[in-house]
Amino acid sequence: MPKISRKGQLMPSSPIRKLVPYAEQAYKDGKTVYHLNIGQPDIKTPEVAMDAVKNTSLDILAYSRSEGSEGYRKKIAQYYAKNDIHVDHNDIIVTTGGSEALLFAFGSIMDSDDEIIIPEPFYANYNGFSTASDIKVVPVISKIEDNFALPAIEEFEKLITDKTKAILICNPGNPTGYLYSREEIKKLEAIVKKHDLFLIADEVYREFVYDGNEFYSIMQEEGLEEHAIMIDSVSKRYSMCGARIGYLVSKNKEVIKTALKFAQARLSPPTLAQIAAEAALDTPQSYFDDVIVEYVKRRNTLIKELKTIEGLKIAEPKGAFYCIVELPIKSADHFAQWLLESYEYNKQTVMVAPAAGFYSTPNMGLNQIRIAYVLNEETLIKAVHILKEALKVYPN
Amino acid sequence: MPKISRKGQLMPSSPIRKLVPYAEQAYKDGKTVYHLNIGQPDIKTPEVAMDAVKNTSLDILAYSRSEGSEGYRKKIAQYYAKNDIHVDHNDIIVTTGGSEALLFAFGSIMDSDDEIIIPEPFYANYNGFSTASDIKVVPVISKIEDNFALPAIEEFEKLITDKTKAILICNPGNPTGYLYSREEIKKLEAIVKKHDLFLIADEVYREFVYDGNEFYSIMQEEGLEEHAIMIDSVSKRYSMCGARIGYLVSKNKEVIKTALKFAQARLSPPTLAQIAAEAALDTPQSYFDDVIVEYVKRRNTLIKELKTIEGLKIAEPKGAFYCIVELPIKSADHFAQWLLESYEYNKQTVMVAPAAGFYSTPNMGLNQIRIAYVLNEETLIKAVHILKEALKVYPN
Repeated sequence: MPKISRKGQLMPSSPIRKLVPYAEQAYKDGKTVYHLNIGQPDIKTPEVAMDAVKNTSLDILAYSRSEGSEGYRKKIAQYYAKNDIHVDHNDIIVTTGGSEALLFAFGSIMDSDDEIIIPEPFYANYNGFSTASDIKVVPVISKIEDNFALPAIEEFEKLITDKTKAILICNPGNPTGYLYSREEIKKLEAIVKKHDLFLIADEVYREFVYDGNEFYSIMQEEGLEEHAIMIDSVSKRYSMCGARIGYLVSKNKEVIKTALKFAQARLSPPTLAQIAAEAALDTPQSYFDDVIVEYVKRRNTLIKELKTIEGLKIAEPKGAFYCIVELPIKSADHFAQWLLESYEYNKQTVMVAPAAGFYSTPNMGLNQIRIAYVLNEETLIKAVHILKEALKVYPN
Repeated sequence: MPKISRKGQLMPSSPIRKLVPYAEQAYKDGKTVYHLNIGQPDIKTPEVAMDAVKNTSLDILAYSRSEGSEGYRKKIAQYYAKNDIHVDHNDIIVTTGGSEALLFAFGSIMDSDDEIIIPEPFYANYNGFSTASDIKVVPVISKIEDNFALPAIEEFEKLITDKTKAILICNPGNPTGYLYSREEIKKLEAIVKKHDLFLIADEVYREFVYDGNEFYSIMQEEGLEEHAIMIDSVSKRYSMCGARIGYLVSKNKEVIKTALKFAQARLSPPTLAQIAAEAALDTPQSYFDDVIVEYVKRRNTLIKELKTIEGLKIAEPKGAFYCIVELPIKSADHFAQWLLESYEYNKQTVMVAPAAGFYSTPNMGLNQIRIAYVLNEETLIKAVHILKEALKVYPN
């Protein structure tokens, strides 16, 4: 029997999906499971986006241009201009989700065994994309005590080798909810310039910023043009995760030229989804205002409720819709499975994401979970109450 | 300025897309350009598929399962059963086009510097996917004189090394139109078993088989279960190239388990496209019958017209909708560019795909072009007439 690859063996399983069989069993056992584990918002997709698809007059579902249509990219550039990010439509490649934008970025700037430094905890799939690209993630540890702020720049310096090609941040952060300040971006600018590295920023949660804080993009930083690669996606912005439309954006012409070759090999991003995503750019501002009000309420409710539980450490999120919580337990993996398998409170339980999957350093975050506040307030209150009751009886 | 990767430098440009600027200029110059170069059929997408999207009642465009919904995969398994291919729905992963299925297959079974043997000429993007996966294509030459039949198995044997992990075929072939016989599949079976290799078959043109010939899938071959990986796509079957839905199919559980990890990292295939593709499975048989009749007419017309040109060598296609033609010229690259840039016949010209991009051996196929017969008969007659007139005056 022929063997699968070393790379294939090393590919991580999703830290969330491995709990799915337990959740399915819980449902079969008649339990209601509140999902605090996934970033699939319950917010409706803008009607303007769905209507564009429903009203399409296409009779041949043909390939689009590999980089996305010129018209669509021009509209994207206008959207960025409104967000004080000034790019040309030729600086943009439309991709199949932010996932593909990351794969194109990794492929364009890194070869086998090259290294990328990422503050951890980080979006778990960065591990998968790195393994698929045969590159090495070098984590730099950020701490729950600092709300997961940027680690001291000396910590990055210590990790840089001949193999280091890039630093990757997620801003605002999944799973941390941390929002990098302009000063932190400037520190990153200094180090990538000093060592001639790329700075990749996954900015898919750009709009999800709270408390009057301002989002600062790496694309706004003058002097970073040749280093900056922005990853973007319509998934969360317009609650259209299933569209699978993202963008790779860079003013570095070589990067765009190279990423375009990867894009050409796979022919084109999905056509129907591009129709929806292009129309979504016309979503009225009121939609976003309502969404932000909703998420702020949810976050406030979540944090308030969590604070009624003793012994928790909470990293208060300034953006995105995730929150890392440290529990007074040993193994969040075991706890998450136990919640689904062995626990119920009035026939209800909760599903949480163990945070260890968001670290690449072994044995980090073992007692942490990620909570996604993508449920309405009433449900969040119920879910946290269940969590509280569960912790009282959990055989630690 | 930070450098792009070696891999990025090596990524091939599409052999077709590099002619696009010349085509655009030709249009600007007021010329009508007949596209014999691309595999984008002019056949309408089945109405049942487009209607499913237009009538969707989804209000949140959410992620689907990474491997595609169970319901959809069960329907796919039924489609295969009708084609005498017996697989379980768990043997199927829904991918973002056949492109992604190939990338998942390559990633699952090969590491950096591993080798894959492919009869050439082959679908040009196999080069791109191989470079992106950092693996090496080892071509085995098939010949226009044999209509590009399977090369002698000894030619494969000569190329097998410790690094060889797989043989890849496209059946029916793009760009050759060749249909492998059951005997040829059996020869491949013997060699992959002898050397413990995988056999990947890109069978996206399965339905496009003419003259009463029968298509024989690697999935029909008993004893090949652990070796066979089938790549499939809805792009050509239902004229929905822009959907970006494909499948990876294998009875090898390790392959599926591994490919699923790649699938999970990128979250899910596009949701709207899956709605269309699932509905497309209900396309009435009359649609396919009409399509096949149409392609047979087109192929017959194309071949008949081409035979009126002196000095051509034509590989007569038994399937797919491509045909390789050897021209009495030195450089098809130059000829293709000249057709767009410097030639016109009553304000008209043709765009062809130089075949060198379908070879990985240097200097092969330099005087060959690929013609896609995806245009109606009337247009094909016009286009071949222009080609004939052009060859008379081309300054070779």
